[in-house]
Amino acid sequence: MRSKIILFGDSITEESFDNGGWGACLSHHFARTVDVVVRGYSGYNTRWILHVMDKVFPVDQTGAPLAITIFFGANDACLLERYGGFQHVPIDEYKQNLMSIITLLKKRWPTTVVLLITPPPIDEEGRLLNPYKDNPSGLPERTNEAAGAYANECIAVAAECGVSVVDLWSRMQQFPNWKISFLRDGLHLTANGNKIVFEEVVEKLKKEGLSLETLPVDLPLFSDIDPHDPLKAFRNGE
Amino acid sequence: MRSKIILFGDSITEESFDNGGWGACLSHHFARTVDVVVRGYSGYNTRWILHVMDKVFPVDQTGAPLAITIFFGANDACLLERYGGFQHVPIDEYKQNLMSIITLLKKRWPTTVVLLITPPPIDEEGRLLNPYKDNPSGLPERTNEAAGAYANECIAVAAECGVSVVDLWSRMQQFPNWKISFLRDGLHLTANGNKIVFEEVVEKLKKEGLSLETLPVDLPLFSDIDPHDPLKAFRNGE
Repeated sequence: MRSKIILFGDSITEESFDNGGWGACLSHHFARTVDVVVRGYSGYNTRWILHVMDKVFPVDQTGAPLAITIFFGANDACLLERYGGFQHVPIDEYKQNLMSIITLLKKRWPTTVVLLITPPPIDEEGRLLNPYKDNPSGLPERTNEAAGAYANECIAVAAECGVSVVDLWSRMQQFPNWKISFLRDGLHLTANGNKIVFEEVVEKLKKEGLSLETLPVDLPLFSDIDPHDPLKAFRNGE
Repeated sequence: MRSKIILFGDSITEESFDNGGWGACLSHHFARTVDVVVRGYSGYNTRWILHVMDKVFPVDQTGAPLAITIFFGANDACLLERYGGFQHVPIDEYKQNLMSIITLLKKRWPTTVVLLITPPPIDEEGRLLNPYKDNPSGLPERTNEAAGAYANECIAVAAECGVSVVDLWSRMQQFPNWKISFLRDGLHLTANGNKIVFEEVVEKLKKEGLSLETLPVDLPLFSDIDPHDPLKAFRNGE
């Protein structure tokens, strides 16, 4: 049975198979080697998701996934006193929750590569230009500073748990035009933003030994099939 | 364990998770309901694939897939006497092979929806403008007429086996600008071509009872979570 990479997270994961999304790009990249499946839950924070871990990863799921990306924090980092406050999770709890998620997954599947992704940076003006329909406050529900604090906790968790992390918050801000280039509404990703996530995930997985160079191809590639005796490729494999 | 839709076919399936591809679109469409995984084998015809059915669908694969799309014929329809002749499969054998594939799958998973997709039409001028690197003949290796004949056999097989079929060959040619709009090299799909396949597959699946209206959502949607008591949604589900 083919190995899986599971993409686990919030809306930025749920919509990762939309046009040019980082999930679709991963699926295309690994088309002949691994199944890439999405477990993305728009609006969810780490507190909510801990209530449903057994539904996301049911006990009848067979075989350890090759890798799981964990991409939460953008909702946890909503400010408590603003619209979106009901999604807020205090930063200490966020840290504990992330550790609980990793512990649960690692206990069940010790060999699975776990890859954390920090929340992206926030363009507060972008949020104000694309507010939630029912947010009349005129204040963004998220700030870049808060997202950065949660990103730092995410990095700390990765270090404590000994797993890899993509520091998306910092990586994106290395580009001068990050607000426009990477974020379509101050939070969710543009095509360029998706490309960054895809590239960073591929690089981290490669460092963990999961790459096109190391993973076996499922069946003979067309380029390896002899035009003068095509069936030879399949007889060898039988 | 979440149900699957398996996309089984040749290069047009293998590359279906590329930017705006019909596989990625399906995965996005069903993000909260079904896993969409790709079993696409560039260059393969129905003869070759029959040699490796047990590798594509291994015995340890648990649970019947919800649906399987079968999208072969573009390579079978390569003309015998031209470049690509080694991919050619005689039309009678193509028909028998398709029936064998369906029989194998239906025997193993009687409840699985099987959906055939005919080969797309061929733009012969497009093929000549984008020839295989090592095809010096100046003749296209495929013709639209041959693709149409194989498409008709595919439709006949669907009728005989009582399964659904997307007649892509005819559907695309209903649009006056199909050659440019839908095919990027006379054979493989543009973004618009992918969109047609996606829409046709969604419609056929819906007719088989598989749609967002009928498939259960995995976890509470964000819009169904009460901002005043978010955890209620999860307590109910426990």
